[in-house]
Amino acid sequence: MIGTQNNLTIQSVVETFVREELSQENAHIAGAVWNMLDAGGKRLRPRITLLAGRACDASAPEDALLASYMELIHVATLIHDDVLDNADLRRGRASTNRTFGNRFSVLAGDYLFSWVFKKVTQGYRNPIPTILAAMLAEICNGEVKQLRAAGRADLPVCAYLEIVGKKTAELFAACAEVGAIAALQHRDGVAGASAREVPIVKSLRAYGWAFGMAFQIRDDLLDMTASEDDLGKPAGSDLREKKVTLPLLYALAGGGSGVRAHVDKLFAAEDAGAPAAAGDLAAVMDLVRTGDAISRTVGSIREYAGAAQRALADVPLSDARDELGELARSLTEFSL
Amino acid sequence: MIGTQNNLTIQSVVETFVREELSQENAHIAGAVWNMLDAGGKRLRPRITLLAGRACDASAPEDALLASYMELIHVATLIHDDVLDNADLRRGRASTNRTFGNRFSVLAGDYLFSWVFKKVTQGYRNPIPTILAAMLAEICNGEVKQLRAAGRADLPVCAYLEIVGKKTAELFAACAEVGAIAALQHRDGVAGASAREVPIVKSLRAYGWAFGMAFQIRDDLLDMTASEDDLGKPAGSDLREKKVTLPLLYALAGGGSGVRAHVDKLFAAEDAGAPAAAGDLAAVMDLVRTGDAISRTVGSIREYAGAAQRALADVPLSDARDELGELARSLTEFSL
Repeated sequence: MIGTQNNLTIQSVVETFVREELSQENAHIAGAVWNMLDAGGKRLRPRITLLAGRACDASAPEDALLASYMELIHVATLIHDDVLDNADLRRGRASTNRTFGNRFSVLAGDYLFSWVFKKVTQGYRNPIPTILAAMLAEICNGEVKQLRAAGRADLPVCAYLEIVGKKTAELFAACAEVGAIAALQHRDGVAGASAREVPIVKSLRAYGWAFGMAFQIRDDLLDMTASEDDLGKPAGSDLREKKVTLPLLYALAGGGSGVRAHVDKLFAAEDAGAPAAAGDLAAVMDLVRTGDAISRTVGSIREYAGAAQRALADVPLSDARDELGELARSLTEFSL
Repeated sequence: MIGTQNNLTIQSVVETFVREELSQENAHIAGAVWNMLDAGGKRLRPRITLLAGRACDASAPEDALLASYMELIHVATLIHDDVLDNADLRRGRASTNRTFGNRFSVLAGDYLFSWVFKKVTQGYRNPIPTILAAMLAEICNGEVKQLRAAGRADLPVCAYLEIVGKKTAELFAACAEVGAIAALQHRDGVAGASAREVPIVKSLRAYGWAFGMAFQIRDDLLDMTASEDDLGKPAGSDLREKKVTLPLLYALAGGGSGVRAHVDKLFAAEDAGAPAAAGDLAAVMDLVRTGDAISRTVGSIREYAGAAQRALADVPLSDARDELGELARSLTEFSL
């Protein structure tokens, strides 16, 4: 599992920030954000933002604000995701839409996005604001593609990977990139689009992107293999929402017409999460678990985690670089 | 009514822009935006953006891009609004949420917001990006307040005005302000927060804010008095959504316990738009129309429209200034 070193510090930085800054402007929205932060989460995005900054320049002051903004963008996307998925649980608690309603959740997400952009455009020079806005547009693009891919058992693996890249990897890539650029801007004032071309920035962005791919594929795998206790939400949630993920695609590729028939039946149900479909759901999950789909998916995770580690090759040796490498390596550890 | 002079030009600029720029990046979202633009609308926000620029500097090139971004921000808020209101109709057509579903609509709005911010941070210097992000946060703030005020017949008039200020006037104020600042930046390179302190910028922002107040109060009045044909959606929509607007507050203040009893009954209904509540809805609308609530509301509109015209006093004489004044004056014309 992901190491917990430094987690407490980052957690308290993000939480102090929400308590002190956000809650003064809109107490209701701060309450919803607080509810989500308080429920846990690994704070991987702010950690990678901070570590990328330190990997660029160990003497740069820690940019806890920028790291907090990255976590808040993530929280805003989670709040809207739960509206999209009509989810009941998130991190083991009632989701924001369940607690506060869909209407409030749409607004709370919008408010968080715009509040973070206000702060970022006030406090950071280009290209940081543009990277964040473009990243958010890509996330939406990926979510639209995911919505259109729902229930498509014939989805090509490359289309699945494109969705994962946009909806998840772009955010991790942006965390590493803006963390690095902010540190360089502090040191030598590099600004404008050229900051994205500095070799160490490109390496760290590549690290973040590959890390995000491995992270999401691992998440999709755990949805098939882990327990409700470990996930903080019911296992098989993706299948219930007719989301087509890599373990399923590998099971379909390896399992012939038997698997396909079960999946088609499950996806043909109007509501794949309804009790009537429970038998089909269990059958599909069994088929995914018993074939080689799991080991092939683990293979993909190892490939992306390896790519993340290799992306660090040109980054100068430092504790921060080691920690980034260790984070990527830990994605390949499973207690399956 | 609002004059139609120059409308066609602005309409075609915004539409060409969506066709050429947005549709290349995400065809599905561009389709939804196109559907909404094609249904009509007066393009007041881009007009005010362009006119404010010309009022500052008649020789500055027309910033059709910035004007288009302001309309697209407006369209994005409409798409999310219709999700919040669960609306069926918008501008006489099926709303985006009805045509494409709530999930797609949430994403389409998010995508538009982030796409516009990407373009604005790439093409405009501060304080323009910050003004737009802060404005969007205020709109969300206003919408959250409106959500919490729903069904509250005892809402103070000042609370209603605060909601209108945030959810509507802030956007018109920002249109005038960024239109003016962009023209000044073009001419003399003024940038940073100090651009907001230039007297003509402050005057034009004050114009936009007062215009927006008059515009929204007029919109709330027409919801009580106009026909479905004129509105492009059923009359009385606000009451059905338990939105407390100025004509209702004036009717409550002037009508004593009789009006209050009807309103309480209507708002106590689980769904004020259900057929069972139709009698109460008609009774409340009749009471609003027959007392002095309409004329008092018209009085408020005249006050804000007058404030908008007075805000132009220090703006140098020009065709653009005249047209801004005429736009504000036209808000006080009614065919009641």
